[in-house]
Amino acid sequence: MPESWLDLEPDAEFGLATLPYGVFSTDAEGTDRRTGVAIGAHVLDLGAAAHAVGAPFADLVQGPSLDTLMGAGRPVWDQVRRALQTWLTDPAHEETVRPHLVERSSVRLHLPFTVADYVDFYASEHHASNVGRIFRPEQEPLTPNWKHLPIGYHGRAGTVVVSGTEVVRPSGQRKPPGADAPTFGASARLDIEAEVGFVVGTPSPLGEPVPVDSFAEHVFGVFLLNDWSSRDLQAWEYVPLGPFLGKSFATSVSPWIVPVAALEPARVEQPAQDPEPLPYLKGAEPWGLDLQLEVHLNGHRVARPPFSAMYWTAAQQLAHMTVNGACLRTGDVFASGTVSGPDPEQRGCLLELTWSGKDPITLPDGTERTFLEDGDEVTITATAPGAEGATVHFGQVHGRILPAR
Amino acid sequence: MPESWLDLEPDAEFGLATLPYGVFSTDAEGTDRRTGVAIGAHVLDLGAAAHAVGAPFADLVQGPSLDTLMGAGRPVWDQVRRALQTWLTDPAHEETVRPHLVERSSVRLHLPFTVADYVDFYASEHHASNVGRIFRPEQEPLTPNWKHLPIGYHGRAGTVVVSGTEVVRPSGQRKPPGADAPTFGASARLDIEAEVGFVVGTPSPLGEPVPVDSFAEHVFGVFLLNDWSSRDLQAWEYVPLGPFLGKSFATSVSPWIVPVAALEPARVEQPAQDPEPLPYLKGAEPWGLDLQLEVHLNGHRVARPPFSAMYWTAAQQLAHMTVNGACLRTGDVFASGTVSGPDPEQRGCLLELTWSGKDPITLPDGTERTFLEDGDEVTITATAPGAEGATVHFGQVHGRILPAR
Repeated sequence: MPESWLDLEPDAEFGLATLPYGVFSTDAEGTDRRTGVAIGAHVLDLGAAAHAVGAPFADLVQGPSLDTLMGAGRPVWDQVRRALQTWLTDPAHEETVRPHLVERSSVRLHLPFTVADYVDFYASEHHASNVGRIFRPEQEPLTPNWKHLPIGYHGRAGTVVVSGTEVVRPSGQRKPPGADAPTFGASARLDIEAEVGFVVGTPSPLGEPVPVDSFAEHVFGVFLLNDWSSRDLQAWEYVPLGPFLGKSFATSVSPWIVPVAALEPARVEQPAQDPEPLPYLKGAEPWGLDLQLEVHLNGHRVARPPFSAMYWTAAQQLAHMTVNGACLRTGDVFASGTVSGPDPEQRGCLLELTWSGKDPITLPDGTERTFLEDGDEVTITATAPGAEGATVHFGQVHGRILPAR
Repeated sequence: MPESWLDLEPDAEFGLATLPYGVFSTDAEGTDRRTGVAIGAHVLDLGAAAHAVGAPFADLVQGPSLDTLMGAGRPVWDQVRRALQTWLTDPAHEETVRPHLVERSSVRLHLPFTVADYVDFYASEHHASNVGRIFRPEQEPLTPNWKHLPIGYHGRAGTVVVSGTEVVRPSGQRKPPGADAPTFGASARLDIEAEVGFVVGTPSPLGEPVPVDSFAEHVFGVFLLNDWSSRDLQAWEYVPLGPFLGKSFATSVSPWIVPVAALEPARVEQPAQDPEPLPYLKGAEPWGLDLQLEVHLNGHRVARPPFSAMYWTAAQQLAHMTVNGACLRTGDVFASGTVSGPDPEQRGCLLELTWSGKDPITLPDGTERTFLEDGDEVTITATAPGAEGATVHFGQVHGRILPAR
């Protein structure tokens, strides 16, 4: 790939290998929302640049959300990405394109698309085993179905918020072990879950399953997701119909959506699957992804979860989610579930990192954490191998805990 | 209430006591969608009538969905309902209003609003006890949390369809008891769940619970819902994170949304709750609702579930759903869960009616049913006491099963 006429630091966040999409504004009220592409220390106003260049897709990328671009389908996504690579490297385009660059530090970022449905999976064998040991110590850690299908459930789309949104500590019912009855109050076991999210661009009709090998035709992009979880609310409510209020108060997502095309060099074989999955879950091509996540608590790194260790791939999740004929809509989000690797420092939530509070984490300021305290700040970042040895950057998803109301 | 200048049959479906809202079209393609009100054998084109009368709310009710009316809030809902009652009874309005009536038999009805999130509860003690006995025979029928909180989970908003939409039999994984491994195929235990749905009009901010007594400020209307369920898919997948593909292939809703105001005469005390619920679930006013449902299979009535027997009210469900700070959006749907009464003929799903297939139903044509067969048609209807001794009608939610693809 030629170099950019922009003065990009080598391996700077958001080089030419990433080119993620987001929605930004520059006015005080955040109302002039526009589609942008992050490039180094800048954001390219994509609609304005496309109109200046006279690109045929200009009308699709000028909106206040990514919805129209996402719904346009893979051929258009590829066309836009190729155009961006040309515009940002060909000196002949500099004069036309440069006026549409904005300092990234000066913009406000917004939830970049309309979330349709939100499904959360549970695809890390290490995470599911650890949670099983903690929540159901008298049973086998993995339920009998776990290695046959990617277990998932629907979450609350209306409380998906963009990185930076403060999270109010939830209140609700919780019942300590041994207590006679539940009590009401602020969650005392507030946790994070470091996850990777996927957003659907191309919809599918009701009644027609999406094959596992059609992943790249339907999925527009990839981002980071923090599935905030109240372990005390969750433990009391989740039998028999699954998580509800323990999760539905907030789910934070990173603002920059990394195109699936940027992750071609990050594709790896997933871990071996035994038993062999049913045919509808067996793809011809690998969709493991070599993303390296990091979890920071108040600026201190507490975990480095490897996404390549996930048992079920996003392509398998998509095929499973639709095998019953459920349709896809533009904006459907599905997330991996907590990303945890085999090693203790690779665990993506505090429930595992502190083993349900038994092994507190000591922070550099000398304080200990079992679960999140008011004022705590959590940041999840990730990188992946990109084209020509470059690095793909995911930016970050960040949130701070406000006291219960 | 004065009589209408329309020649309404006494106790005809959709008299002045109901005045439900829907979205209809009259062209072949179904593209000229307009907000309508059902009145006897007619539909009133609400936007056209409101503009003709010069009503201040005309712009809110002229859209191709109920979204704008729903989002306008209770004072507007009350204003529109009062106006409708006046227009349809005051002879002085007949000349202006009558041109905007369309024969109900000539219109096509559509999904009347944009579904935001969809939550399904599990609020019938009789249903939950029966399901517990069938699915978990070795345990107590009700889980320990059941009488402390209204158990619910999020369903798939994108597969909520309007009455009349045909339902393709879902395929997926199921594992018969005793089998070594799951197999893939068409669901062999396809079921219905007769439920009552509620749709939110007035939204609420993230982080702020909605009090139990604010129900009527937020909930716009009530309708019927058939939560199609694949019992074999569900039984294999639902531990530990709850129902997913066993439910997400389709959820059918009735097209006419009955305003909460129409149900004032149907409000009753709910069954006694023991233990006493926590304060956030204790309302000052009763929100039990005396709706009488009927379930018809191929034209034959198979059940008469009484909604008044539900343990948890919709007001309690709304308070619970938001107590963790989850926000409400216009178009959020929540449903009661299967409506089952104490008597065998009051059970709202085939799982209970046939006791998991052990006691087949014999239809008038001599055939037996345990679960649904291809071509079967299911219709759910309901009525409730309305103003001045009249009857509130809910119309119907209807669906036919197509063979698996």
